[in-house]
Amino acid sequence: MAKTSKSKKSLTYADTGVSIEAGDAMVGRIQQHLRKTHGPRVLGKHGAFAGMFRLDFNEKLFKRNYKDPVLVSCTDGVGTKVLLAIQLGKHDTIGQDCVAMNVNDMIVQGAEPLFFLDYIGTHSVDPVHMERIVKGVADGCSLAGCALIGGETAEMPDVYGKGDYDLAGFSVGVVELSRIVEGDQRVEKGDVILGLASSGVHSNGYTLVRAIVKQAKLDLNKVYKDFDDDPQFAGKTLGEILLEPTRIYVKPIVRLLAGYKRKRPISGMAHITGGGLPGNVNRALPENLDAKISRKSWEVPALFKFLQKHGNVDEDEMLRVFNMGIGYTLIVRPHFAEAIAEKLTKAGEQVFTLGKITAGSGKVVFTK
Amino acid sequence: MAKTSKSKKSLTYADTGVSIEAGDAMVGRIQQHLRKTHGPRVLGKHGAFAGMFRLDFNEKLFKRNYKDPVLVSCTDGVGTKVLLAIQLGKHDTIGQDCVAMNVNDMIVQGAEPLFFLDYIGTHSVDPVHMERIVKGVADGCSLAGCALIGGETAEMPDVYGKGDYDLAGFSVGVVELSRIVEGDQRVEKGDVILGLASSGVHSNGYTLVRAIVKQAKLDLNKVYKDFDDDPQFAGKTLGEILLEPTRIYVKPIVRLLAGYKRKRPISGMAHITGGGLPGNVNRALPENLDAKISRKSWEVPALFKFLQKHGNVDEDEMLRVFNMGIGYTLIVRPHFAEAIAEKLTKAGEQVFTLGKITAGSGKVVFTK
Repeated sequence: MAKTSKSKKSLTYADTGVSIEAGDAMVGRIQQHLRKTHGPRVLGKHGAFAGMFRLDFNEKLFKRNYKDPVLVSCTDGVGTKVLLAIQLGKHDTIGQDCVAMNVNDMIVQGAEPLFFLDYIGTHSVDPVHMERIVKGVADGCSLAGCALIGGETAEMPDVYGKGDYDLAGFSVGVVELSRIVEGDQRVEKGDVILGLASSGVHSNGYTLVRAIVKQAKLDLNKVYKDFDDDPQFAGKTLGEILLEPTRIYVKPIVRLLAGYKRKRPISGMAHITGGGLPGNVNRALPENLDAKISRKSWEVPALFKFLQKHGNVDEDEMLRVFNMGIGYTLIVRPHFAEAIAEKLTKAGEQVFTLGKITAGSGKVVFTK
Repeated sequence: MAKTSKSKKSLTYADTGVSIEAGDAMVGRIQQHLRKTHGPRVLGKHGAFAGMFRLDFNEKLFKRNYKDPVLVSCTDGVGTKVLLAIQLGKHDTIGQDCVAMNVNDMIVQGAEPLFFLDYIGTHSVDPVHMERIVKGVADGCSLAGCALIGGETAEMPDVYGKGDYDLAGFSVGVVELSRIVEGDQRVEKGDVILGLASSGVHSNGYTLVRAIVKQAKLDLNKVYKDFDDDPQFAGKTLGEILLEPTRIYVKPIVRLLAGYKRKRPISGMAHITGGGLPGNVNRALPENLDAKISRKSWEVPALFKFLQKHGNVDEDEMLRVFNMGIGYTLIVRPHFAEAIAEKLTKAGEQVFTLGKITAGSGKVVFTK
């Protein structure tokens, strides 16, 4: 809050640190990024009171696929990964994280994402930073095949520290009623659990990541030898590795589901976020079944071993906080497991057969 | 971040200030509030990866009204009004503000709200405070006739100060393609501008409000004589007056629009938010027309005179920052103006005839 010491001063909004001009400059900059994500179903123009998305842009296409459409919607933020982006001054990929956190949640229920909106709360609008953030959101939307139809940037100098911001998003998709994937209804004993590789820490557990970095005095700008044998991260600084954007699983999963017109071999799915494998795979289980996952079925990436070592973190805690290399899981009928793994591999995913569904009590059990 | 001085300590997530138990306690508390807003169109259960809303819950009803449905969506926060709620320890109405900011935006384009999601970023989860906030969101959803189908609470102790939080929301509605209200396409010379009374400051301009309170050393717990003659605020403390929740205009506006099956006498609308009347009514104007508004057509409420006096704020600045007593405007065909004003009055709104549309250049012009 500005200049409150001059008690007879005539107050204006600008005095309080909120700049309408900076906001306008930002709006101009971000329009191009939004437009890149727009197809013929997006109506209206930037600056309208609300974004508009035409459901039946082509009657034949939409109505052929959807007899009883159910809108699926979720909201999520990127957590304290923003603080790492701020610390490193790299703002162009955190937007992809924000999109990923939302659309990866939505496809779990069988939906195809339609559109996205973002919310940025910040100390004050830096048009260049804001453009980078929104560009990342638009990139994420392109990867997810959805339209970025709106957003809000709120300047709140007394809530956020200088240079700080928070980023949250909101997505809407659609699924046919009879094709909603509800693991607790359809998962059966003997079903196979498949895991898709994550791209890194994704967007959960960054408060712990940052605590480890601080406690162990790690250097975010250093290239650590621990990653020399890691084809993804060799030669990259720790900061770059930790900011690697969250993988978006939308296109392979939506295509996979669309490929089975009558059969429904995918009985449950999970996006591995806060809570890790034990806190998310269980969300796709009936009360009387367990997910038995072999710890030998996939190799935990060097990144998680590195964090565990420097933070002296318990193995159980690692599994509860981090994805440990698996970002998304599918539970599938055993006869289809191989074919599905092959399809996903061809779509560019690294697929692991993690284990099987057994009698139990709705929890994840790790075996050696 | 906790205990980073003990450098050999084994780190856990709880050490960093993020409590999973508090989060779980909150989820239990808020379920009842969400459920109150759910009709038969809401599917799935609390705790799913995403919320679900059935579009065609009743084929006859939905398909009779919508041949070419367009989804309308927006996101907005409550700005620094949260800081006032925090300062006064009153968290049960800020949620209504959050809903209002979104749904009042959406109805401008002719949409009826369907569902809502909220995002709360906070230092640490206080289950009691969070329940009050979400209860307010649910109350707002009930007033707006929409379902609260999801939300996210993010604990970010290094982004938000102790006790602080930010609150944003997202809403989705639907409008028939041919009935979208687009002021810049349909507003004509001679159309009449109607204004609906606001309930107070609503949710914009609070950074300035708080600067005025601080500079003039106003007491939020005092009952000021300035409001003795104000039927709405007499006897209330300044804090109570400033926290008065934003009026939700959904039900009267949606009913009004639905009442005109063929004729379309409402040519444009605006929700008066940041930018005030001059910065919002203009968004409903074609480039070659002005909105001529008489300053005598409505009485500015005592609250705005009080803020202006104590902040020594310019009249123009007041009009650009605050709603000055008018929270929502409609531009209507002159022959229908009286009937529409009567309908809205019967629906419980206080209606003012603010002025007329004249030749011009897309701006708001005030006359004495």
